[in-house]
Amino acid sequence: MREGWVDKAALEADKPSGPVLHFGKDNPLHMEAGVALAPFQLAYQTYGALNADKSNAILICHALTGDQHVASPNPVTGKPGWWANLVGPAKIIDTDRFFVICSNVLGGCLGSTGPATLNPATGAPYALELPVITIRDMVRAQAMLVDHFGIDQLFAVVGGSMGGMQVLEWASSYPERVFAALPIATGARHSSQNIAFHEVGRQAVMADPNWHGGRYLAAGTRPQKGLAVARMAAHITYLSEPALHRKFGRTLQDREALTFGFDADFQIESYLRHQGLTFVDRFDANSYLYMTRAMDYFDLAADHGGRLSEAFKGTRTRFCFVSFTSDWLFPTSESREVVHALNASGASVSFVEIETDRGHDAFLLDEPEMFGAVDGFLRSAARARGLAR
Amino acid sequence: MREGWVDKAALEADKPSGPVLHFGKDNPLHMEAGVALAPFQLAYQTYGALNADKSNAILICHALTGDQHVASPNPVTGKPGWWANLVGPAKIIDTDRFFVICSNVLGGCLGSTGPATLNPATGAPYALELPVITIRDMVRAQAMLVDHFGIDQLFAVVGGSMGGMQVLEWASSYPERVFAALPIATGARHSSQNIAFHEVGRQAVMADPNWHGGRYLAAGTRPQKGLAVARMAAHITYLSEPALHRKFGRTLQDREALTFGFDADFQIESYLRHQGLTFVDRFDANSYLYMTRAMDYFDLAADHGGRLSEAFKGTRTRFCFVSFTSDWLFPTSESREVVHALNASGASVSFVEIETDRGHDAFLLDEPEMFGAVDGFLRSAARARGLAR
Repeated sequence: MREGWVDKAALEADKPSGPVLHFGKDNPLHMEAGVALAPFQLAYQTYGALNADKSNAILICHALTGDQHVASPNPVTGKPGWWANLVGPAKIIDTDRFFVICSNVLGGCLGSTGPATLNPATGAPYALELPVITIRDMVRAQAMLVDHFGIDQLFAVVGGSMGGMQVLEWASSYPERVFAALPIATGARHSSQNIAFHEVGRQAVMADPNWHGGRYLAAGTRPQKGLAVARMAAHITYLSEPALHRKFGRTLQDREALTFGFDADFQIESYLRHQGLTFVDRFDANSYLYMTRAMDYFDLAADHGGRLSEAFKGTRTRFCFVSFTSDWLFPTSESREVVHALNASGASVSFVEIETDRGHDAFLLDEPEMFGAVDGFLRSAARARGLAR
Repeated sequence: MREGWVDKAALEADKPSGPVLHFGKDNPLHMEAGVALAPFQLAYQTYGALNADKSNAILICHALTGDQHVASPNPVTGKPGWWANLVGPAKIIDTDRFFVICSNVLGGCLGSTGPATLNPATGAPYALELPVITIRDMVRAQAMLVDHFGIDQLFAVVGGSMGGMQVLEWASSYPERVFAALPIATGARHSSQNIAFHEVGRQAVMADPNWHGGRYLAAGTRPQKGLAVARMAAHITYLSEPALHRKFGRTLQDREALTFGFDADFQIESYLRHQGLTFVDRFDANSYLYMTRAMDYFDLAADHGGRLSEAFKGTRTRFCFVSFTSDWLFPTSESREVVHALNASGASVSFVEIETDRGHDAFLLDEPEMFGAVDGFLRSAARARGLAR
């Protein structure tokens, strides 16, 4: 690690600057791996105020490397919340009207129990001794947080990518507790190609000798090079080929001509290296393994005898799916499959496919059509829920 | 390296079991990097016999990790030649009729001068002291090999992927020396996304501490883990999402249920790991850096004032392009761009897009439509060249 550099990520993982909910031995999390996890904790943020009948809560679920700081500055990077353009006072998800909850997922590295947390049984960080976490485990933990607020039914559950998987799991596991569900750029399972890219990332981390079989914190190292390579590979999948062509093409980086060497001659190389380098400052390598595994394991149909419609049988939740034309990680066809299953369950579903060349990452960007879809859906749901002003 | 294991790849790189052509100090290769390389050598294979007027020679150019063993067993892996289903006696590229030449490209690791070759100036392997090699450099070296056989004009130059780039470079640099050109699954430049994937691979190699800044041979190590990760990432790009879904889907590997761990639960993970592991036994990591860089640098339009049609001005070569519908590394649009440029140059061009879900790798597979296209084009060209029986 760099000399004299304050490891803000480690500080936040250890003692988050925001609120934390502790669950003791009397309140374990029953995990899909067959283990009861206790104690454990969830770090979270809330925005706005819960109304008297507790009917205005929106749970936002974050993506693979996201966190609870959806609408307030990230304490590690100092950057604005990751959905600050969508969530806040007078924004589309209006915190003057709604009570917004966002928790760092179980297995994360910004204050919730994860592989960097000390295992009370050993006094050392869990590393790979933490059981593999599933999307359902994340959602069960979130449900315990929602219980803590005394909220029976969430007005809405919203999220993109891995956050969208959580939305689908919420609607499937707790249909009575979700009035409206808004999964964005996601699917009901991780495809073979997506598993393949995640496996490359995991192998890159594990190939780094500083990973030490997962026990790098005890060894005083971090597998930063491996994690940077993992991030670079993943980052390509978040963008579309046309957008890469438009933004970078074959443009050279601060030079007139090719250097005939292995430096970053092309802007795209420089950009990717930057993505890798900045990521390792804010993210824990083992958490990355757990998050990718959670996505790979997600398969809502398999959890219901191979029939996706069974996952939503009799649901009264209203759904709005959003997909992006150039998203090749979660193409529209993946959303459409879930929409068809919901149609087969007789559910109320709308589906918006947005024309953009910005790829999977579009869900995190200033994407007016997405904002419009979220706005329209939430307004309509709010009226139905009696929340309209 | 494994104890007691014979490093066949190193033996073949050092003293190839097939023919080698040596170029002395009086016959240097003038490289695009501005350096004259001498001495250097090319390892090659030939099949069939050159006819009396030397008009029946076909040069086959290999892809990124290919080699000269196009139609005879590979001495390292023991496997059949990489295009043995297409090239051989009574095959479509019939070695009873044609004299087939295939050389290990400059920068390769199966006997031609590459980064593992001893630098006569230092007595140590070149490592990164070898100048960066371009597709044009590879083709210039091949032209010197063709000179050695006294061949003025090749009947055909054929190749896929990086081999296809060489075909285009041949047709552009030596239009009088190429009667027919058959570029498959390729393009006139490497796209931003393709550069990005290559950069991930290079960073994976360079992140491996066993890479030693490229001097791993002197250190008695090999960056096998990094190279395996690079291969895994690249391998995903050679396949298509539908083919991965068809072949692997979410099928588990030799187990009934998920293990809730980081072993290869899914077949796709096991398959990818195998691809990585077998690759490092046959390929040199620095060669991988040089080969990927050569592809990244390739931009035939940029070499001709930004106008691709200028690259083929006045050409009399007849062309046949082959692309595959599911190839997302070199999509049909890349072939079409070159075809349009050739049309603008008034060239004779045919273009076959083949419907398949096998992705970029289709050019290496038993793909009947591709075989048909190659057969038809070569027959027609042979008649035009007076080679028909």
